Amino acid sequence: MELYGGVEGGATGSNVVLIAADGKIVSKVDGPATNHWGMTLSGGEQEEATRKMIEQLKVTFPKLSENYYITTDAIGGISTATDTGGIVLISGTGSNCKLVNPDRSVVGCGGWGHLLGDEGSAYWMSHLAIKTVYDAIDNYKHTPFNICLVEKAMYSYFQISDQMALLTHMYRNFEKSKIAGFCRKLAEAAAAGDQLSCHIFQRAGQELAQHVVAVLPHVDQRLHEGELGLPIVCVGSVWNSWDLMRNGFLKVLKEVKQKPMGRNLCKFTMMKLKCSSALGAASLGAKHIGYNLPMNYAENVEVFFEHCFSL
Amino acid sequence: MELYGGVEGGATGSNVVLIAADGKIVSKVDGPATNHWGMTLSGGEQEEATRKMIEQLKVTFPKLSENYYITTDAIGGISTATDTGGIVLISGTGSNCKLVNPDRSVVGCGGWGHLLGDEGSAYWMSHLAIKTVYDAIDNYKHTPFNICLVEKAMYSYFQISDQMALLTHMYRNFEKSKIAGFCRKLAEAAAAGDQLSCHIFQRAGQELAQHVVAVLPHVDQRLHEGELGLPIVCVGSVWNSWDLMRNGFLKVLKEVKQKPMGRNLCKFTMMKLKCSSALGAASLGAKHIGYNLPMNYAENVEVFFEHCFSL
Repeated sequence: MELYGGVEGGATGSNVVLIAADGKIVSKVDGPATNHWGMTLSGGEQEEATRKMIEQLKVTFPKLSENYYITTDAIGGISTATDTGGIVLISGTGSNCKLVNPDRSVVGCGGWGHLLGDEGSAYWMSHLAIKTVYDAIDNYKHTPFNICLVEKAMYSYFQISDQMALLTHMYRNFEKSKIAGFCRKLAEAAAAGDQLSCHIFQRAGQELAQHVVAVLPHVDQRLHEGELGLPIVCVGSVWNSWDLMRNGFLKVLKEVKQKPMGRNLCKFTMMKLKCSSALGAASLGAKHIGYNLPMNYAENVEVFFEHCFSL
Repeated sequence: MELYGGVEGGATGSNVVLIAADGKIVSKVDGPATNHWGMTLSGGEQEEATRKMIEQLKVTFPKLSENYYITTDAIGGISTATDTGGIVLISGTGSNCKLVNPDRSVVGCGGWGHLLGDEGSAYWMSHLAIKTVYDAIDNYKHTPFNICLVEKAMYSYFQISDQMALLTHMYRNFEKSKIAGFCRKLAEAAAAGDQLSCHIFQRAGQELAQHVVAVLPHVDQRLHEGELGLPIVCVGSVWNSWDLMRNGFLKVLKEVKQKPMGRNLCKFTMMKLKCSSALGAASLGAKHIGYNLPMNYAENVEVFFEHCFSL
């Protein structure tokens, strides 16, 4: 019996699937975090790292698999959702965007971490909220919104009583995920009608859409021509607040549609993965040795928004 | 013989002066860095910290001094430059602004560190330059300027060959002063005519002026009425690039002059301290026990710019 294995490695957990040649899932297992060595290496070094990893796998587990194929999480994610390619738009603690074209070439935007990127992520929204409060108190930058609710939420979330005490959280005991976690409080405030929080989520929607705009000139025409239009696979917990971000997201794409560079963009479909991207990994591994594993892509995703431009 | 001592404590070095009752400097000594404990404490706790420090000084050196007075570097700086008060505008690695009114009350803006403030500082300019390069390469945000020279200078300064390698400097081995040091290269590029570098310095000038605008509503009328107009004491190495920032700085203050809140601003004078703010400290200590130490303020400062609004 021929089996195709797929592994999704991650910082918080890992998933493995075994799929038969007919596309049926034979086995699924969850495991602990997989160490991302190679994550901060540049392209060339990464190739060297995956070559070494495969070599090591063959030596340590000589009977495990005949063939190996290692690639990035973006390609694994897109291969779980579509056969042809699309855009992976990540917004969790941080943010990142990768366009995967039908020829498997990748064009990225963002992903440079909280000091140089992360626009539209949970960290970015928390930071924007905190900075808006600080600037308003300092009379440094004007905000048209009332900051009271966000300021109170900030003191409560970080368990502090003044602005000075927050500096410990921002510097000495800096934890990106702790700061990003404040975004959940902003989502609650926005849902309760707080205007500043609503504004911050709209801004995040704009920034995330701007990542799509950045890679748009590189999108292969075939990706526009499918039934879904341009597929955008959304990864990360910030997408749970899509309703709060939608108008901002749409605004930016409608604007770009008016420009020459947006002329090919007729439709786009936003979706989440319903299953582990280990499935896409198995399919990629099979493709690597020339076999087309049957995949029911529609079953792997949940479409949560689609938009056709009427122009 | 009555002696008034002044100490300027700093992160890189310290200065001490002893001044006789006639204002003559009896002795000057430079020393190593003074540990800033208390720096990240809030107002109340800082008061407690200075009380404890004075207690400790009295116990450890019972014959050193009859009286002690401890305050912040901003008040020490302004007391070296003027008798009445003014604005201290710091731009070095980081940035900060303090208005000191004639009644010695202080209103601040900024000084929250590189994640929440530091606008117009060397770190801020370096960061803006790097971010502009990253966003342009990603096609994320458009810049009207050619980034080539700044990109090359960045690779050269950090001794790296690609964007990925910079992340080590930004995260794993983050050193604020190392990143801020890149600003010197930007100053060289600006002097050589590089438009992006020139733009960044103009932006810094605007941000520094915005600090002044932030505290302007709190400026005591008496500070506007002196011969110098509003005195702005400029501290930090970024002021060596004043020529590159001047137009941006002036633009913001000219704009505020058109608004109701700027109506009292008729003239301002920018100056650097020519001597240690230990002198101001000694004068403050003397004042604390009711003695007015003669000071020649004009000798302590170098005026490098003054502007009268013609409106």
